Amino acid sequence: MTFYQKLAQHHKKLSKLDHLEAICGWDQAAMMPEGGNTARSEAMAELAVISHELATAPYLAEWFERAERETLTAEEKASLREMKRQWQQHTVVPADLVEEKSLASSTCEHAWRSQRAQNDWPGFSENLQKVVELARREAQIRAEATGLSRYDALLDLYEPGMSTKELDALFADVKSWLPELISQIREKQTHDQIIQPVGPFPVEQQKQLSLAIMDKLGFDFNHGRLDVSAHPFCGGVPTDVRITTRYDENDFTSALMGVIHETGHARYEQGLPVKWAGLPVGKARSMGIHESQSLFFEMQLSRSEAFIGILAPLAAETFGRTDDPALTPENMTLINTRVKPGYIRVDADEVTYPAHVILRYEIERDLIEGNIEVADIPELWDKKMSEYLGLNTKGNFTDGCMQDIHWPMGSFGYFPSYTLGAMYAAQFMAAMRREMNIENLIRERNLQPIFNWLDRHVWKRGSTVSTSKVLQDATGETLNAQFFKEHLVHRYLK
Amino acid sequence: MTFYQKLAQHHKKLSKLDHLEAICGWDQAAMMPEGGNTARSEAMAELAVISHELATAPYLAEWFERAERETLTAEEKASLREMKRQWQQHTVVPADLVEEKSLASSTCEHAWRSQRAQNDWPGFSENLQKVVELARREAQIRAEATGLSRYDALLDLYEPGMSTKELDALFADVKSWLPELISQIREKQTHDQIIQPVGPFPVEQQKQLSLAIMDKLGFDFNHGRLDVSAHPFCGGVPTDVRITTRYDENDFTSALMGVIHETGHARYEQGLPVKWAGLPVGKARSMGIHESQSLFFEMQLSRSEAFIGILAPLAAETFGRTDDPALTPENMTLINTRVKPGYIRVDADEVTYPAHVILRYEIERDLIEGNIEVADIPELWDKKMSEYLGLNTKGNFTDGCMQDIHWPMGSFGYFPSYTLGAMYAAQFMAAMRREMNIENLIRERNLQPIFNWLDRHVWKRGSTVSTSKVLQDATGETLNAQFFKEHLVHRYLK
Repeated sequence: MTFYQKLAQHHKKLSKLDHLEAICGWDQAAMMPEGGNTARSEAMAELAVISHELATAPYLAEWFERAERETLTAEEKASLREMKRQWQQHTVVPADLVEEKSLASSTCEHAWRSQRAQNDWPGFSENLQKVVELARREAQIRAEATGLSRYDALLDLYEPGMSTKELDALFADVKSWLPELISQIREKQTHDQIIQPVGPFPVEQQKQLSLAIMDKLGFDFNHGRLDVSAHPFCGGVPTDVRITTRYDENDFTSALMGVIHETGHARYEQGLPVKWAGLPVGKARSMGIHESQSLFFEMQLSRSEAFIGILAPLAAETFGRTDDPALTPENMTLINTRVKPGYIRVDADEVTYPAHVILRYEIERDLIEGNIEVADIPELWDKKMSEYLGLNTKGNFTDGCMQDIHWPMGSFGYFPSYTLGAMYAAQFMAAMRREMNIENLIRERNLQPIFNWLDRHVWKRGSTVSTSKVLQDATGETLNAQFFKEHLVHRYLK
Repeated sequence: MTFYQKLAQHHKKLSKLDHLEAICGWDQAAMMPEGGNTARSEAMAELAVISHELATAPYLAEWFERAERETLTAEEKASLREMKRQWQQHTVVPADLVEEKSLASSTCEHAWRSQRAQNDWPGFSENLQKVVELARREAQIRAEATGLSRYDALLDLYEPGMSTKELDALFADVKSWLPELISQIREKQTHDQIIQPVGPFPVEQQKQLSLAIMDKLGFDFNHGRLDVSAHPFCGGVPTDVRITTRYDENDFTSALMGVIHETGHARYEQGLPVKWAGLPVGKARSMGIHESQSLFFEMQLSRSEAFIGILAPLAAETFGRTDDPALTPENMTLINTRVKPGYIRVDADEVTYPAHVILRYEIERDLIEGNIEVADIPELWDKKMSEYLGLNTKGNFTDGCMQDIHWPMGSFGYFPSYTLGAMYAAQFMAAMRREMNIENLIRERNLQPIFNWLDRHVWKRGSTVSTSKVLQDATGETLNAQFFKEHLVHRYLK
């Protein structure tokens, strides 16, 4: 057996442990009764230890060295590169720092749950200080190992190849037109007459509707399922993708759009190259690309007027409300394209969403680089919220800088993925439009060419090439925020 | 850290892997879509390898040796004894035999699924021959390690302390009165007028009824749940017990009695001593004791006239059929105590069930000991079915010696547990009756004293003492088939 083969076998083994972790994690969120939590967490922690030991086994250094001197095909070289990437990310941070980080962030996150409700910034900031300190230490170690800056070294965990330099340029572009665009759209939407749908929309019917839409969107029910959890997510494994949602009997659109969003994630996972199953090169390329698929399904496809022309009658029929004026395609389009600046990122529409992300990016970048301290966050938050969205958040930590779980749990470098995803999605759609008439396809209920395009250009590539190569091959150029702007202008100001 | 403590830590780690195995196994049976099966089986096989490596780690021999020389409390000694028991069972069989067995039985079981439907005894017996041969080799190795006979060494895996000698005596007792008892009951029941309930009984209502009964039987929903699977079982872990059932819209009693049966298993698991969680000494004592709890709930408790007085009106109300003459307590009692010899063990009533078990025990005992060969099975089967139940099975392998999954999957020594469980349950009930008036408690809807008795005498003992000590302490004597006989006579011939 060659060293490359030994490494491949080793990573397939690791992937089997990830499989168990994914299913038990899904169960914990979607099925497990509360009382099972302690033992489950302990069992999963044990699995994490075993995985970590395996992922950082001392013999791997030599295996990589030897494998790199073997004669490999171009594909195998890509596979080796991704295995090494994963291995380096696992090994570079010393075990005691990993443990210290895990302890500090679980303490911070746990306390945050009540501190947020109590608007307790002083209490929270004390814990966060510790989390940031450890994140900086981790970033420093990763920076030294990769030659990247501290923040870039964290960014690289989620969006390999992306840099502060590129992000700064992209986000500067967005900031140059977004505030003005938001006010133009707000102005245009002033006189829209929206009829709010009035519940109850029974859970059982919402579930039926969700399953019908997943089916239309090509979700493979032989390799996945839909369930309920407090926080919707896409989990499981490519051969068995588990998506979740939560139902509100007064508002069916939020669960519906959530399911469509997760279906985008799911189809990416279900479409990954089987040939590379269990190897890093067969996994999703990046968090940004992952988000681009969920946002392609949710924003590019399903909030389009053409698609709502399918969605609305299906919803009306499912709820037995074919006469409800709130469920006409026209009214549902108004609901699903409403733009309104708000405090909460996860509730934001696609136009104001980037403002939330850019704000967080700028703060966490400076925090990790050591240019600002935790104590500076509230003032910066208030200033940027006012500047980007015209909102006053002073003294409201709950709906301000304490709203997200990312910082309490020590995830720095993740936020940009959301807006990168929106940009990738817009750029994919623009390229697709050069090849086919999307609106006609939707009206003909023929979505297959759209999925085939994504499958060929994104899903089946896995991690065989870099993110920028995926983008370049699929769209003819590197990431360009103009496609996102054009999408917004076309949808909201046409 | 003492060696005892090191061993305890080691076994807690093993138990965490068992936790993951239990949840992923439950998911595979109750949740997983078909297409996820291959990757799931591979992931679980990997987990089994890791568990096995850990359970048979070479350093354990020395740890046990050292721990045995440490000063331990009586409780710790019991704990050490159970750890060693588990370790010896894992280590004594060489890895290549384990693998060969696993391969032969999965081949045999897989083929059996179609061979059984096709009544293909020649095809099946060829595979079974191989399975039996390997089981004999395993039995021989275990016999040499334990000083037991070959069959006893296998029996010991499921029912520690039980022996062929004791079983022969117990079953001889049963055989001396069972055939006559069956005909007396059949005679007595000849003129019973049973009204068969006519469906449909909607699945959703059956589920509600199941949950209501589980609640009355004290199932802790904060530490468990009810779902659906093709073959009902009790799985999960003590802090999160997963029971399953399957619903038939034409017959609600089978799912209902199945749920009650699994609830008995579940309460045993939920009631195991928390103090010993994760250690062998904190686990269920034996398969027979486990079955005694499910049969106590199903047979002793729930098929009693008093309990059906609760069940029947609850069912009638749940199905909106308070006027249905099929759902009166009187008619439901007739249905739930109907005795009728049949070909299929899993469909048998509690009176004829032991005949099925004794027949299988006698055949597998002689098979493992080498007194008979696979080719002898059909003739023996036919002879015993005719003798014990008056049924002719000649040429009908499908409903005869090919009906159970146990032999194809290489589980020899398990069958006696079912009838041992029925006997233990009857003996527990007889002892309980000396302390309280069971019928009165049921009529007063006050089941707590019954559960408290089981908790104290069975559940909380875990594996801290031997099965015979559990029985002796709880009932004042060792296993005695007369209690089972008296139960049957009292219920069916009174």
